[in-house]
Amino acid sequence: MVKLSIVQFTPLWANKTQNLERIASLIRGLESDIIVLPELCTTGYSFLKKTEALDEAEDTSGKSIAFFREAAVAKKAMIIAGFAERDRENVYNSAVAALPDGSVKIYRKTHLFFKETLCFEPGNSGFYVIEHPLVDCKVGMMVCNDWRYPEAARSLALLGADLIACPSNLVSTLWGVGMPARALENKVYLAVANRCGTEIRMLEDGADQKLTFNGGSVVYDFNGSPLVKAASDEDAVLTSLIDPVLTRDKHFNAYNDLIKDRRPDQYYLG
Amino acid sequence: MVKLSIVQFTPLWANKTQNLERIASLIRGLESDIIVLPELCTTGYSFLKKTEALDEAEDTSGKSIAFFREAAVAKKAMIIAGFAERDRENVYNSAVAALPDGSVKIYRKTHLFFKETLCFEPGNSGFYVIEHPLVDCKVGMMVCNDWRYPEAARSLALLGADLIACPSNLVSTLWGVGMPARALENKVYLAVANRCGTEIRMLEDGADQKLTFNGGSVVYDFNGSPLVKAASDEDAVLTSLIDPVLTRDKHFNAYNDLIKDRRPDQYYLG
Repeated sequence: MVKLSIVQFTPLWANKTQNLERIASLIRGLESDIIVLPELCTTGYSFLKKTEALDEAEDTSGKSIAFFREAAVAKKAMIIAGFAERDRENVYNSAVAALPDGSVKIYRKTHLFFKETLCFEPGNSGFYVIEHPLVDCKVGMMVCNDWRYPEAARSLALLGADLIACPSNLVSTLWGVGMPARALENKVYLAVANRCGTEIRMLEDGADQKLTFNGGSVVYDFNGSPLVKAASDEDAVLTSLIDPVLTRDKHFNAYNDLIKDRRPDQYYLG
Repeated sequence: MVKLSIVQFTPLWANKTQNLERIASLIRGLESDIIVLPELCTTGYSFLKKTEALDEAEDTSGKSIAFFREAAVAKKAMIIAGFAERDRENVYNSAVAALPDGSVKIYRKTHLFFKETLCFEPGNSGFYVIEHPLVDCKVGMMVCNDWRYPEAARSLALLGADLIACPSNLVSTLWGVGMPARALENKVYLAVANRCGTEIRMLEDGADQKLTFNGGSVVYDFNGSPLVKAASDEDAVLTSLIDPVLTRDKHFNAYNDLIKDRRPDQYYLG
């Protein structure tokens, strides 16, 4: 069995120091094999233009990555967290997987949402799967709005993911319809670490943009049923035990295998 | 607006005459543009081997198709219903779309479920969309277990479906997780006409196979919310008004278009 934790909290906008302190406090004493944190959890979410995102973004030598790397080594855990990634003059809405051996892998969000399209480049990392070096679990990453596109989770499942980790900053409640389907249709566990709280930014016309993130962080089992579920508006650290091996036989009865029954020659996915 | 009806009832196994009489009675007086009936609704479901299916199956000159064709012409409606289709020595779990001009289109179920794999050939019609000749609505068909594979509904949406009609004989309740996601992730209406009732067949070892179909026929709007919903265990004819035009702009906010935002070059769907 693998011990999986999801962390929900309220990052402060453009305050990396306090956010990293808050994360350190939340995961202190946590002994889990995998820890998933929200999207953009070291910077906050509400960037309105690219220059703002560039100001907060960092490459893999930055202090967010250093923090997660150190924590992963110290805890012998895989830590997955969203951060604003700078690569020369480009910014990506990325997730890092920091591994207990001190290495890091980066996933760049494929499907940008709303005004992210003004600030970030569409991700170009593609989908891939990471083998946890200490426990038998293959982990794939997607970020928030990727839930809406079944191709994201499907890609990860076809690549062999047992668990999809999904750092999120969700504002619409429609994800409650789509996320459990991603787990069920792929027979994988799905860990959604959402943030909570409200961010208010002033727009150029003087009006306010107010975004409330709806928490409810959840781990779905491979039938799409919640194993743990946070409240909508409170910080939370929730832990569940999952058995990744159970996701590998894709039969859902004696006659049907979810992956082998696919009929790519009959699909129109142009 | 388009008037859409779904019909839920309990077909009798291997009793085409009584099933067609029951269907005639259920749709008598119904004035809808589109009527969707369950999977295998003229034969019942529980075929245990191919010879049984061959005995009940019929080609497009058979009496089920004649019945639906006549009803479609008389009602100026598109009628979609599941039937066992014979094509020489092959049997398919098919759906017919009978059009008001007397023509018929056939869809052959792509993803067979459970012991259907012993009786039917996997469908080879592919997915396609039919323009209703009398109202502005593009309709695609899938059948029951096709819900489990997001590629089915995605194919229909990419081909331009406003509405997916899904004749069904559902026995597991997991479809309640997957079906609404199909509507939401594609911004299409989805009409699920399920059957109800129980079929008991004796197996070769003398044991009984008892299948209870769970009804709950439903029309989902393009956010995955039910517009109408039947009980689990009662015959029902439910009608809703849908506006197919609303499904064609795939934006879900000012910055995102559900179809244009897809990133096929980033997917691994091998």
